[in-house]
Parts: sequence; C-alpha cells; structure tokens
Amino acid sequence: MTKKPPALFEKFIYILIAVNVIAMILESHESVHLQYDVVFQIFETISIIIFSGEYLYRIYLGYKNKGLQGVSKYIFSTFGLIDLISILPFYLNRFISIDGRFLRILRLFRLTRIFKLGRESASLKLFVKALSAVRSELKFTLFLSVLMILFSASAIYYLEHDTQPEKFSSITESIWWATISLATVGYGDVYPITVGGKIFASIVSLIGIGIVAIPTGIISASFVEEILKMNRKQKD
Amino acid sequence: MTKKPPALFEKFIYILIAVNVIAMILESHESVHLQYDVVFQIFETISIIIFSGEYLYRIYLGYKNKGLQGVSKYIFSTFGLIDLISILPFYLNRFISIDGRFLRILRLFRLTRIFKLGRESASLKLFVKALSAVRSELKFTLFLSVLMILFSASAIYYLEHDTQPEKFSSITESIWWATISLATVGYGDVYPITVGGKIFASIVSLIGIGIVAIPTGIISASFVEEILKMNRKQKD
Amino acid sequence: MTKKPPALFEKFIYILIAVNVIAMILESHESVHLQYDVVFQIFETISIIIFSGEYLYRIYLGYKNKGLQGVSKYIFSTFGLIDLISILPFYLNRFISIDGRFLRILRLFRLTRIFKLGRESASLKLFVKALSAVRSELKFTLFLSVLMILFSASAIYYLEHDTQPEKFSSITESIWWATISLATVGYGDVYPITVGGKIFASIVSLIGIGIVAIPTGIISASFVEEILKMNRKQKD
Amino acid sequence: MTKKPPALFEKFIYILIAVNVIAMILESHESVHLQYDVVFQIFETISIIIFSGEYLYRIYLGYKNKGLQGVSKYIFSTFGLIDLISILPFYLNRFISIDGRFLRILRLFRLTRIFKLGRESASLKLFVKALSAVRSELKFTLFLSVLMILFSASAIYYLEHDTQPEKFSSITESIWWATISLATVGYGDVYPITVGGKIFASIVSLIGIGIVAIPTGIISASFVEEILKMNRKQKD
Repeated sequence: MTKKPPALFEKFIYILIAVNVIAMILESHESVHLQYDVVFQIFETISIIIFSGEYLYRIYLGYKNKGLQGVSKYIFSTFGLIDLISILPFYLNRFISIDGRFLRILRLFRLTRIFKLGRESASLKLFVKALSAVRSELKFTLFLSVLMILFSASAIYYLEHDTQPEKFSSITESIWWATISLATVGYGDVYPITVGGKIFASIVSLIGIGIVAIPTGIISASFVEEILKMNRKQKD
Repeated sequence: MTKKPPALFEKFIYILIAVNVIAMILESHESVHLQYDVVFQIFETISIIIFSGEYLYRIYLGYKNKGLQGVSKYIFSTFGLIDLISILPFYLNRFISIDGRFLRILRLFRLTRIFKLGRESASLKLFVKALSAVRSELKFTLFLSVLMILFSASAIYYLEHDTQPEKFSSITESIWWATISLATVGYGDVYPITVGGKIFASIVSLIGIGIVAIPTGIISASFVEEILKMNRKQKD
Repeated sequence: MTKKPPALFEKFIYILIAVNVIAMILESHESVHLQYDVVFQIFETISIIIFSGEYLYRIYLGYKNKGLQGVSKYIFSTFGLIDLISILPFYLNRFISIDGRFLRILRLFRLTRIFKLGRESASLKLFVKALSAVRSELKFTLFLSVLMILFSASAIYYLEHDTQPEKFSSITESIWWATISLATVGYGDVYPITVGGKIFASIVSLIGIGIVAIPTGIISASFVEEILKMNRKQKD
Repeated sequence: MTKKPPALFEKFIYILIAVNVIAMILESHESVHLQYDVVFQIFETISIIIFSGEYLYRIYLGYKNKGLQGVSKYIFSTFGLIDLISILPFYLNRFISIDGRFLRILRLFRLTRIFKLGRESASLKLFVKALSAVRSELKFTLFLSVLMILFSASAIYYLEHDTQPEKFSSITESIWWATISLATVGYGDVYPITVGGKIFASIVSLIGIGIVAIPTGIISASFVEEILKMNRKQKD
C-alpha cells in the first residue's frame, strides 16, 4: 500500500499555503509592507523551513514506497517540481549573489505555491484523465491557435504598420494585438484603423476566435465525458 | 400530499415582484424619484406587508406538511432565505438605528426579490439536478479559476508595478485586471505595457481563459445531458 | 403532395434579396446616395412590387395546398411574417401620413429581408428542431440571464452611483453596463471604479458570464445531438 | 503503397519553415531590418529555391504514385495550393513588373508558409473529418452569423448615424462595429451612445453573440465525437 502523509499534516500544509497567499497579497500593499516588513520576513523564513521539511518528508515517503524509483518519481512529478520551485528562490537568494532583475523573476516562482493547494483532489485526477484522453488533439489545436496568432500578427503588421507605425511597430508587437483579439479580450489599446486592417480583423475575428476557443471546448467535453463514465461505473 | 399555495396566490406574488422590480428601476431615475417619492414609499410598505404575509404563510404551509421539520426545511431552503433576506432590510431600518453606509448595503438585499421569480419552474429543478450531478467537478474548476486569477494577479503585479505603480498598485488591485481579462471582458482601463507583462498576459490569455471557461462548459454539457435523459424517459 | 414554388423562382428571389442587401449597404454611403438616389428609389419600387407578388403567390400556394387553413398557416409562419414586415413600411409610408421618427423605425423592418435568405435550408429545419427540443430549458436560461442582468445592474447602480453619477445615472443606464459586461464585450465606456463596485463586478463576471453563456452552450449541444441522430438514421 | 517523402526530408523542411517564420518576425523590427537586410534577402532566396525544389519533388511524387491524376490531386489539394502560393510572390516580383501596393498584398501570401507546419498530423486528419461531418451545418451557422452581422450593422447604422455620423458613417463602417461586438472583442473604438442604439445593442449582444458562437460549439462537439469514436475503435 502506498504510504501517504497523515491527513492532519496535509491540512496544516494547506492552511499554511493559504496564509502564505494572503500574506503575499497583503505585502503587496505599500502601506502594509512598510509597517510590517519584519513580520513578513520572519513568516516567509518560517514558511520556507516548513515547506523544505515537507519536501524532504515527501522524498522520504517516496523512498519508503518504492526506493530510489519512488524518490525520482516524486521529484519529477508536477507537484514535486512545484514543491521545489516554490522554495528554491529563497535559497538561491541567500547563497548565490544574484542581481535584482533576475531576483524579481525568481520571486515569481514563489507564486507556484498557490498551485500546491490543488493536490490530492479526486476531481484533479479526473481532470488530468480527461486532459490526457484528448492530449494529442489538444496539442494540435493549441498549435493551430499559435499558428493563427502568428499569421494574424504578421498580416496585420503588413496592413497597419504604415498607418500606425507606433502601435504595430513589428510583428512581435502585433502578436500582442493578435492574442488579445483572438482571445476576445479586446482591451482597446491597439486596433486596426485602415480599411484593409478592419476587413482582415473582421474575418479573422469570425474564424480565428473559433479556432482559439476549440481547445477549451475539447477540454470541457472530455471532462464531462469522464464524469459521465465515472457516474456510470458507480451505478454498476 | 405536499400542500402548496393556490395557483392564484402564486400568480399574484409573481406580478407583485415584477411590479416591484419595475418600481425599483423607475425609482433610480432622479427625476422620477423626486416627484413620486411618497408613492414609492407607500408601495414599498404595502409590498413588504404582503411579502411578510407570504413568508408567514409559507412557514405555516411547511408546518402543515411536516410539522416543525417542514418549517425549518422551508426557512433554510434557498428560496426561504431569499424570502427572508428581501424583507429584512425594511424591518432592520425601522427598529434598529443603523448608519447610512450599512443601510445602503442592506438595500442591496432587497434586490434578491428578483430571484423569487424563478421559483416553481420545472426547468429550474432540472437545472439544479444538472448542477448537482457535476457538483464536485464544478467546485474544483471554480477553485482552479480562482487560483488562476490569484496567480495571474500576483505575477502581473511583479511585472507591471514598477512601470504602472498607480494601475497595479497592489495584488488586490491586480485581481481586478486578472478577473476582467480572464473573463474576456477587457474594459481597457488596465492592461500591461511592459514587454514582460505583455508576454505573460498573452500566455495567460490563451491558457487562463480556457480554464475560467471550463465551469460554463461543464454546466451546459451536464444540463443538456439531463434534458436528453428526461426526453428519453418521457418516450418510454 | 405539398406544392412549392418552382426552383427557378426561388433562385430569382434569392438573388433579388442579395442585390437588395448590397443596394442597402451602398445606399448608406452618403456619396453614393447623393449621386444615385433615383436609381435606388426605382430599384426599391421594383423590388417591392416583386416581393409583393411573391407574398400573394405564396398565399395562393397555401390556398392550393390546404385551402384557407394553408393560407393562415403561411401568413402566421415566421417567414410569412417576415415576408409581410419587409414590404409593409413601403405601403404604410405611401398611404398613411407618418412622421419622420416613426418612419425611421419602420425602415428597420426592411432589414428583415436579410433573413428571407435562410428559407428552405435543410440545416435550418434541423436547427429549428434542435431549438425546439430544448425550448423550455432555453426559455429558462434566457430568463435567468435577464434576471442576472437586472440584478447586476441594480447592484452596480447602488455601488457606483455616488462616485460616477453620470455613467451610472439610473438602473436603466446600468443595464447597459451589465449587458455589455456579462456578454463579455466590455467596450470600456463604463466600468466600476469604487472598491465595492470592482469586487462586485469581479464576482459577477465569474458567475454571471457563465450563466449568460449557458443558452449558447445548450443550443450548440442540442444541435450537434440532432446532427448525430440524423447521421445515425441515414446509416440505417 | 503511396510513396511519401523521406522522414528526414520532412523534418528538414519543417525546421526551414520554422526558421523562415522567425526570420519574418525578426525582419519586421526596423533596427534588425536595417542592419541585416542582405542576410534576410539571401536567406529568402535560398528558402525559395528549397521550397521550389520541394514543390517540384512533391509533383514528381504525385506522378510516381498515380501518374497525371496524382499530380493534379497534389496541385489542387489544400497543401499543394499553399505550397504554390507561398513561393509565387517571389517569382512574380522578379519576372513581372508590379507596383508597390500590389506587391505588399502579395507578400501576405508568403505568410501561408506558416500553415505548411500543420501537414501530416494525425490530429489534422481527425479534425478535417470532424469538420466534414458537420459541413453543411457549419456552413448554415456561419451564414446565419453573417446575416446577423449584416442585420446588426444595418440597424445600428439607422439608429446611430445621426448622433455619431463619423463613427457610423455607413453600413460598411457599421459592419466593423457589428463584427467586433458579436465576436465579443469590444475594442471600445465604436459603441452606441443613443438610447435606441444601446437597447438594440443589448438585445443583439444576448442573441447575436449566441449565434456567432454556435459554429465554434459545433466544431468542438464534433471533434470530441470523432476522438471518442477513434478511441472506441482502438479498444476493439
């Protein structure tokens, strides 16, 4: 039988993550940050120690279950990587001298802590199953979406660059327009103003949006299919 | 047999709610409000008296059906709570002295009256059935959506805060951007302008929007499944 | 056997409608309108005569098929009403003196001509079948959408009116915000700026958008179901 | 047995296309363009030579497989046309004198190179199968979408033209508003401001958006249906 951490331990870790997320949100408020900086630093250090302990404990559990194979299975699992990534920046910052810019990017990894909350849910397992059932089709439609975005970005660049050289300064810049448009967000910071650009954007809106929305449709349909399958099994 | 209010009574309550909603909309126009203030106050008082009578009547019906158990069943049902919440602010305002700000929030509860219109629909029952069939998966995907929003908000805060300190002043503020973007509304009041922020927002748009849209897809698919099941039953 | 208009006649009417639509689009350009006004008027008169002839012809066909019953069946069918509405403004304008404002609204009815193009398609029949299979659920979810919009509009009015009295001047005005937000269009002409308004709008975005999107999901799913059913039949 | 190009050759072409796309994106940056113009021109010429060779080779393969029939089958296939279109502008530009404006449109065809990446994917074949299973319904719903856009554009033109003569100058201009609104992009560059326009836009948002979203729903559902069918087959 696979050994798992005790339920109480799991609950404690969950609460700690939740408090960590709340702390991160509070800390981002300048006024709060200035007044309670030390509190946040102490809390972060304590959290890191506990999370590090959790990481070692899970490695140990993996070893107990299947020896070295179990260890490497855990380390390279999605949650194993998340567990590592979310504590790594703290240590890197302490032991290696890194410049400020890179540090800020590293801090982003701390955010992955949020996703630790999803672990051990039965729905997550069903969701992963639903995803893997349509894995190759999902890859294909995501690839199609990226192609569609690249194509739209390039075309709008040629059509709008002369009239709006600042907003469509390069294809790279136009990718921003293409993504935000095909995802139907449409902030309104960039949009075509030439007749050609408008006609192209209209056609692309009708076709491209459909293509970009397909992956979501596939995931939903596959998920519901798995739910129905499970329900049928439970009945039998 | 479960006793229900007579059909005529139900109809009368329905019409009264509809007139209440119209009155609320009309009252919000300053010119109308100034001229007919007394009329609206009298109408509100009469409405409250009738709705209070309805509430007591439904409690009485619950008692007739299953004694005290029936009473508590009604009181703690969704519509029982809505029935109470929609009349409560009136009484709280009369009998307890409360300050203006809290009163305004209380007035919001009056709005729940709108949802009383949905009672007793066969489709509502089917809809609730469809929702409860995918209950745990719905909770999971909504939880995933909230995680996605928190993660996006935190990341964009780190990426954009220095360049747009006013628009992305804290993670709390950034949650507004994340929700409006991942729900694909995109008002255009806040959007990333740095290269890092744009790249992150593009990727998040493609993945995050899909995740936020999954609950809707699941509800629709589950609803249609229940409709088909019911149609098949009616055929047999 | 039900008598239908000859195929050539149908084709001619189709082309005439298409030309009518193109003419309407061209006429809307001021420069074109000023230069070719007479041409458009003559074309409109000829079109009306032919469409009137078509209307009488279809009434006659109805009579031939099932007597007076067939006539009333045609007249009160969707396309029968569209056929009438699209020619009516012309005659009303000629024979009754109407003021300019009402006339402009009447001209809008001329647009229904566009929908005459959909007649006689096998897919339309399947689509209507798919719609009627989920009729009552569709009504319910549309009703739910309207409730959601009314509720959101009222709540945002109470939350934002004091801060933005011009943009959220009344609940009627706020309905515009609610519809455009819940339909995820988000022009960006109105949006909440208070903390309360933003929190409410965020929550409403996640829940309300899902509700407003359900009717579409139901229609799509029901349509595909009908397509699959038809394909299975064709195989047997 | 149908002869196919060797796997290594396919891989080489794939990498070349990917490098071409990257080159196109880089070239669009003014600073890069100015400094490395010659490099890009040489790379383009080499690419064209290889793609031309690929085109001839595929014609030869078609001939080997089924004689002249195989040749015409390849030439008029989707990818055959893409292969041709993506190299044509280069030759037209060399051998025929064409003016600058037409040349820029021709350059757009170069972009079709992106879609060459999709060839030979098993998912693509399944996707095409899913599309063709709902072909006629897809055509119908796309046609319905176009009707809806034309109708909305015409109606908003009559409602908003007098108040915003610049933004809704003609129905052609209003089509831009209608497409961007019904596709739920909503840049916010044009939107109704009259009461009539807002009421119409609200109603159209609720109904029209549903209609425009149906094709996507159909494609997703059909795709998932094909995936499930294939999975069942693989099990048997």
